[in-house]
Amino acid sequence: MVRVAAAQLEPRVGDKTSNVQNALVALRRAIDAQVDLIVLPELSNSGYLFYSRAEAFDLSEQIPDGPTCRVYLEAIEGTGLHVVAGICERDGNRLYNSAVLLGPGGYIGTYRKLHLWNREKLFFEPGNLGLPLFHLPFGRVGILICYDAWFPEVVRILKLQGADIICNPTCWDLMPGLVDESNNLMPPMHMGQAHMNNVFMICADRCGLERGCTFAGSSCIVGPTGYLAGPASFSDEDYLIADINVSDARRHHWSELSDPIADRRVDVYAADLGYRPPAD
Amino acid sequence: MVRVAAAQLEPRVGDKTSNVQNALVALRRAIDAQVDLIVLPELSNSGYLFYSRAEAFDLSEQIPDGPTCRVYLEAIEGTGLHVVAGICERDGNRLYNSAVLLGPGGYIGTYRKLHLWNREKLFFEPGNLGLPLFHLPFGRVGILICYDAWFPEVVRILKLQGADIICNPTCWDLMPGLVDESNNLMPPMHMGQAHMNNVFMICADRCGLERGCTFAGSSCIVGPTGYLAGPASFSDEDYLIADINVSDARRHHWSELSDPIADRRVDVYAADLGYRPPAD
Repeated sequence: MVRVAAAQLEPRVGDKTSNVQNALVALRRAIDAQVDLIVLPELSNSGYLFYSRAEAFDLSEQIPDGPTCRVYLEAIEGTGLHVVAGICERDGNRLYNSAVLLGPGGYIGTYRKLHLWNREKLFFEPGNLGLPLFHLPFGRVGILICYDAWFPEVVRILKLQGADIICNPTCWDLMPGLVDESNNLMPPMHMGQAHMNNVFMICADRCGLERGCTFAGSSCIVGPTGYLAGPASFSDEDYLIADINVSDARRHHWSELSDPIADRRVDVYAADLGYRPPAD
Repeated sequence: MVRVAAAQLEPRVGDKTSNVQNALVALRRAIDAQVDLIVLPELSNSGYLFYSRAEAFDLSEQIPDGPTCRVYLEAIEGTGLHVVAGICERDGNRLYNSAVLLGPGGYIGTYRKLHLWNREKLFFEPGNLGLPLFHLPFGRVGILICYDAWFPEVVRILKLQGADIICNPTCWDLMPGLVDESNNLMPPMHMGQAHMNNVFMICADRCGLERGCTFAGSSCIVGPTGYLAGPASFSDEDYLIADINVSDARRHHWSELSDPIADRRVDVYAADLGYRPPAD
């Protein structure tokens, strides 16, 4: 079994020191509980709603040499914990809405958000690293960030590459028509994605009000048969933990004669969804 | 506004006369309520769990010249009602798990299930009519049958073709791990599909126990912002009705700068999912 966790945090925009310290509390809690993999929210070191690109630039840092990665790496060195954390990334003069994957032995990789939501387009470059799959000791791990998961293509492409677990740092804001907890579509939608694709998803959302925007909390850990943990609190910081059997992502014979991957009608639609990985 | 309905029925396998009469009650109710479009469950004229192909063959009929279509067409002639109904179809010596689309002016078209679930593979041919889109007076309508909707490719292809409404006759049986109403993933999963793709879905399920198999009921009418009606009863016949604004399926600017169709990263994955319509 693989022990996974989602830390639902309330970052304060601009206060990186405090945000990273707050995240460290979650990492220490995960280390104490012998968690293998924890996910922190999107842009959880910087905060989310920037007034300008200049503000985002000032809050950005390099991966993995920036201060946030250094602090996280120091915390997990020599433990069993892997971390996926949303970072406001600077690469030269380009900014990316990224998630870094760190392990007990050091930096492992980066995912850059492919589908930028709303005003993120004013500040960030679209992701240019494709959909990397990381082979960790306990299984194959992909990463998506928030709005990415509204695109069935990318969840499917990760599954077809062999993903067992999809880490999903998010900042779910309340879209029109989604006014409060009572009609929050995000957890069931992600549960549906996990079920359809027979994968696990660890969705770590932020919560709270930031510059007029309410975030939806409701982090969740979901798998082929539904919720493993959560949805978490709508309004407050929270912490989810679950033990998952990674093999269940690879065992998708749902009935005697049905396998939802083998049963794809690749005579009617493309076998590979036309995935174009980036050139090396 | 378009008025749509889902009739949740409990067909008796082998008793076509009774099943069709039962469906007629739902059609008349829809006509009285000035419904524009009603969906009946998968294989709702024949029943679902055949012992053998020979039994399925005996219960099959031609579309649209068989007795079931004739009875339905007579019932809706000159009204405003369109019907999507699951039919055990015979075409020569081939059997298909099909849905017929009938209108007040006569036969409109047929969809043949692309993805056959479990023992359906022992009796039916895989669908060979692709993913037709029907232009009805009130909007563009596609059809999927049950297990089809577990394949994100086909919902997306219908959306990319312009579908406003997806009619979904189903026989949701209880898969391993889905033991009762408490963890029924089907309605939230379909709600997620409708939300991600910004379309409406009318899921008409069957209910009841047939030859040892329990069906999940829980029919639902869902749209871009969640449930419009249902989930229906888990165990009993039921009837859902909703008024939908078809334009909401075409108005998918979810925020000032976000459109979940325009935002697709067709530089990373195929623009069209490689859809291959059948040759004429």
